[in-house]
Amino acid sequence: MQSFELDKTDLSKLKKAIEGDDQLLAETLAEYHASEIAILFENINSGDRQRIINLLEVEKASEVIAEMSEEAHPEELLIQLHPEKRTEIVEELDYDDATDIISQLDEEEQQEILEDLSAHDAESIRSLMSYHEETAGGLMNTQMIKVNIYLTKKDAIDEIIRQSEEIEEFYTVFVTDNEGCFRGIVSLKDIIKAKGNVKIIDMVNVDAVYVKADTDQEEVAKLLSQYNLTSIPVVDEHLKLLGRVTFDDVMDVMEDENTEDILKISGVSEDEELAGNWIDAVKSRLPWLIINLGTAFLASAVVRYYEDTLAHLAILSAYMTIIAGMGGNAATQALAVTVRRISLFDLTDQQAYRTVLKEFTVGMINGAVTGVIVLAFAYFFDANLMLGVVIFLAMTGNLIIAGFTGAGIPLILKRVGIDPAIASSIIITTFTDVFGFLLLLGLASKLLL
Amino acid sequence: MQSFELDKTDLSKLKKAIEGDDQLLAETLAEYHASEIAILFENINSGDRQRIINLLEVEKASEVIAEMSEEAHPEELLIQLHPEKRTEIVEELDYDDATDIISQLDEEEQQEILEDLSAHDAESIRSLMSYHEETAGGLMNTQMIKVNIYLTKKDAIDEIIRQSEEIEEFYTVFVTDNEGCFRGIVSLKDIIKAKGNVKIIDMVNVDAVYVKADTDQEEVAKLLSQYNLTSIPVVDEHLKLLGRVTFDDVMDVMEDENTEDILKISGVSEDEELAGNWIDAVKSRLPWLIINLGTAFLASAVVRYYEDTLAHLAILSAYMTIIAGMGGNAATQALAVTVRRISLFDLTDQQAYRTVLKEFTVGMINGAVTGVIVLAFAYFFDANLMLGVVIFLAMTGNLIIAGFTGAGIPLILKRVGIDPAIASSIIITTFTDVFGFLLLLGLASKLLL
Repeated sequence: MQSFELDKTDLSKLKKAIEGDDQLLAETLAEYHASEIAILFENINSGDRQRIINLLEVEKASEVIAEMSEEAHPEELLIQLHPEKRTEIVEELDYDDATDIISQLDEEEQQEILEDLSAHDAESIRSLMSYHEETAGGLMNTQMIKVNIYLTKKDAIDEIIRQSEEIEEFYTVFVTDNEGCFRGIVSLKDIIKAKGNVKIIDMVNVDAVYVKADTDQEEVAKLLSQYNLTSIPVVDEHLKLLGRVTFDDVMDVMEDENTEDILKISGVSEDEELAGNWIDAVKSRLPWLIINLGTAFLASAVVRYYEDTLAHLAILSAYMTIIAGMGGNAATQALAVTVRRISLFDLTDQQAYRTVLKEFTVGMINGAVTGVIVLAFAYFFDANLMLGVVIFLAMTGNLIIAGFTGAGIPLILKRVGIDPAIASSIIITTFTDVFGFLLLLGLASKLLL
Repeated sequence: MQSFELDKTDLSKLKKAIEGDDQLLAETLAEYHASEIAILFENINSGDRQRIINLLEVEKASEVIAEMSEEAHPEELLIQLHPEKRTEIVEELDYDDATDIISQLDEEEQQEILEDLSAHDAESIRSLMSYHEETAGGLMNTQMIKVNIYLTKKDAIDEIIRQSEEIEEFYTVFVTDNEGCFRGIVSLKDIIKAKGNVKIIDMVNVDAVYVKADTDQEEVAKLLSQYNLTSIPVVDEHLKLLGRVTFDDVMDVMEDENTEDILKISGVSEDEELAGNWIDAVKSRLPWLIINLGTAFLASAVVRYYEDTLAHLAILSAYMTIIAGMGGNAATQALAVTVRRISLFDLTDQQAYRTVLKEFTVGMINGAVTGVIVLAFAYFFDANLMLGVVIFLAMTGNLIIAGFTGAGIPLILKRVGIDPAIASSIIITTFTDVFGFLLLLGLASKLLL
């Protein structure tokens, strides 16, 4: 009994055990929870992973594989195992975990695994594989506790105990009618507390939230979080109960969605693996950099247009970088706050309008304050007040544009049904570059030459 | 029974009901779940909020207040209510929710609320307020189901039923000894399944994970998510059981931490309220922009140093913006991937080293590819091959620096115990600006003049 996480001491202890014989390794592994061994797997090679899986009891081995992160590729480990061991492990896995792992393999390998399973297991996994990965159907587990609405307390408890032999964890008892349609939920606590002759129908909570199988995973996560549910039932179009999505699946979804948000807003493809190799990273980022290059040429065309102005007053180049850099950062700030707000709350039209107005105001004030600093600098170091005034105007103007686009573009994208996070810093900073240069160089060519 | 969320139709229906009399409003409210009314509250004024709270039964009113987001300021609503109503609502709230809300008020208002409560409630809330908000103690609820390890099955069930009168939701039964120390967990299911003469001590799972009251909330969230727990027990230094943190608290923590990550990486203070007004936003962002201004002067000093070079070859200004912009974006990409990876996984030294090496390689390749494009452009449009070569070298060099710093700086910060997300784009892009200009203008002054 301890409060544990896998620290460096544990890691080196486990690595040392790997160098020893099977008995030492097995004894050391016994001290660790399956999810800790799954973390260890991120730090050891494929051969050692297989050896450990073969040493563990089937139940623990399957837990380890279920707990491995997607990026550690449990499917590769699974396919390399001896077919007999593999079948034992897959049969021990929850259907939703088995589906997630097997669906990462190519079709031939999927067949190889599925045909070794019992007909019932293979059928269950095949039917789960038919749902899109990022929907309630793709997340759900078909193993759950369900009782008929017409059962009495006593029969319901017997039924729950019978069903719970196969299900390690459950939080809510689902209630169905004779047609298998979802009718509500009841807590185990309420069943126990009920008098002996009470029926499920007398205590079922019919106001329970449920989702359709094709509901997007983000929506499922929102509902579960909003209503503080440990699990949410999944139904088909006729309300037939198909399965349940549990809070631990949703926590993983939340983490994935947040990773995607941070990556997209930073101009990285949302499906880049954080621990992927350089080839994956180049594939994921180069397209965005080439888009950025295109937009940079646009900003550079503005500079090119004012080449004469710059030749006459080369010091402007030094201020260009300041205006562009400040605009880019102010836009990124407005973008981050707005994208995050859209992702957590649904904004009404009025709130969207107010957000843009707010960012406009913030840009104006921040632009004026930083503009005055640069004005003072230009006056004292370059002894040129008019240059300072031009820079002040360009800074204020550019930070207004930064706020306006940083908030406005994601809101517009959301309105037309495009993911707002795609309005990444790459897109937004083009606006501030182009307008920053136009303002600075345009005003300079009019007022300073 | 439906799959519901608060859409526009619901919102306008509720708003219309607000314009009607109390009876219509009460009837309409009855159709909605407390967490839906909490969402409605984000769109109506303070007077309407109070009226609705007064119309609802105490139980539902307290649920609405508990479900309001921190940014909707439930504490302001609470303090404005009639003292009698307020006391009823606070007494109905879970202690952890009451603590969160009351601790947002100033000391005088806190006293005002606490002195109306029963001595026991006030004492419980005061003791919870003594823990830091972002620790297990600050998150925990003291209401939980716990049984003595020496009880028999039958007595334990009686005890659980008795305790569950006050606790709406529970997922796990905690086991303590005669000294109140945490000894493990047992599931309600296992108790029910047990034979009549079995004692708790025979079925308790002593390997349960627990946390100390001062454990950081991020650590609590990681453990709960890693071990798929619905709740985690919180103990003091003598292992005395103090309370529990539940999965729904942790989901809120995950959302908050993710918001903070996105804000920090974008150069926004982590505690800026997403829906805050422009004054808050200026306060939160202006300091970062002024830091950025300081670093921009640094980059601008490089440009200033090469003023003569630029006066001779003004076209370099047009390429400067491209080199700097590309470097900034490549650095942001590397930063986002690295910061997110650090926040989800603990990296070993070897993994950290490999990450920097990977980003170095990615920078080199992306720099060379985009550099060749710009080289070709310079050759065809400016008929200057040597200029193209200089730009190619500057681009490749700058994207290598981008990868190196984008990955290296957050990893170093993590190693020395500073939050890696603070290595925001603002800090990182300074490096790419300064080095990009140095490379481009330095090489140009040597090779082109």
